[in-house]
Amino acid sequence: MKTIVLLSGGMDSTTLLAYLKSVDHEVKAIGFDYGQRHVKELKAAQEVAMHYEVPFRVADMRGIGAAFMQGSSQTSADIDVPEGHYEEESMKQTVVPNRNMIMLSIATAYAIQEKFNCVAYGAHRGDHAIYPDCRVSFIQAMYAAIKECDWHTVKLIAPFIDHSKTDIVRLGYQLYVPYEKTWTCYKGGDKACGKCGTCVERREAFREAFASDPIPYEV
Amino acid sequence: MKTIVLLSGGMDSTTLLAYLKSVDHEVKAIGFDYGQRHVKELKAAQEVAMHYEVPFRVADMRGIGAAFMQGSSQTSADIDVPEGHYEEESMKQTVVPNRNMIMLSIATAYAIQEKFNCVAYGAHRGDHAIYPDCRVSFIQAMYAAIKECDWHTVKLIAPFIDHSKTDIVRLGYQLYVPYEKTWTCYKGGDKACGKCGTCVERREAFREAFASDPIPYEV
Repeated sequence: MKTIVLLSGGMDSTTLLAYLKSVDHEVKAIGFDYGQRHVKELKAAQEVAMHYEVPFRVADMRGIGAAFMQGSSQTSADIDVPEGHYEEESMKQTVVPNRNMIMLSIATAYAIQEKFNCVAYGAHRGDHAIYPDCRVSFIQAMYAAIKECDWHTVKLIAPFIDHSKTDIVRLGYQLYVPYEKTWTCYKGGDKACGKCGTCVERREAFREAFASDPIPYEV
Repeated sequence: MKTIVLLSGGMDSTTLLAYLKSVDHEVKAIGFDYGQRHVKELKAAQEVAMHYEVPFRVADMRGIGAAFMQGSSQTSADIDVPEGHYEEESMKQTVVPNRNMIMLSIATAYAIQEKFNCVAYGAHRGDHAIYPDCRVSFIQAMYAAIKECDWHTVKLIAPFIDHSKTDIVRLGYQLYVPYEKTWTCYKGGDKACGKCGTCVERREAFREAFASDPIPYEV
């Protein structure tokens, strides 16, 4: 398979890249700058891509983010990043309007342009409670839309959709994923805050997998 | 209904805007700059939006077009715009990789941000032969994906999908659409070329509707 992978620089998409390489996909990676608060994740994505020696390009969506994707703590400076467990209702304010569909549609354009036949993204079971655009029903609809969007056929895959984040850590350790290069925290500070939903989720996953998280935290 | 309309400045989306206004939708319009050869269509879109007194914003996708949507006569300077009938096989070189999915996904983000409940686009029956992303199967899949993409529900409508371009002209004349303000030609020159697929299709539609096309042509 020749696959475009959505690479955010977080642990899920990094493990996905490692997995695709382990099963011999030819991979190109794409990241997205939509003016996110945690834009430093793209630096992590670049380092991960270099580690795996795959080409990495960033889609410049800063204008689009500023004009059409407001109303989330990740794009609007006046909305605070909520702290707490990642399945709490308050975490819904981290949802960015239609982020995943936009990212998948641009990745699919890239696949068509390159005559690649697959687009991969790292949505997992734990995302469903908060992120509507990580649900199986959404992915199934996008699978159908991507299959129909061009005369050149592209297949959408989401290998982790039935797996937990803990499963992802387990797989990642088998694959020697360099988690020290990844970035997860939604606050985007010097160190990971340890208190936002994504930090809490990440630490819980490492703990449940009996693995140690190599990145430093503020708390 | 509160509706985001995809407005290219061409005759289909302009008639769609007129139709939505006639049935009392509250409308905001969005255009897309993906570095298209015929970027002057956006000036037409601006004038149409002013005519109907609806807000109009342009999504800046120039970087995305240059990096991820190449391989079409409309985005790649080294591929000529084909001339002839718009249903000829050669017209497939005007297909821009995944353009409609990207545009629909950004329009949907805009709808979510504004708490609008509808996205409208002007695909019609005559588009199907050449544009995979105007087919009913594609629109149905996008309808399902858009319905699922956020906790705020957005509905995709394509009122012209079962109608011909001739039907669109007939409707437009009933609604006093200012076709002199629209731009269709893919070559994007001073005047419409009259020979590219979109010019041929437009002229055919006006002729079949026994209407006169108010714009000047080179031939």
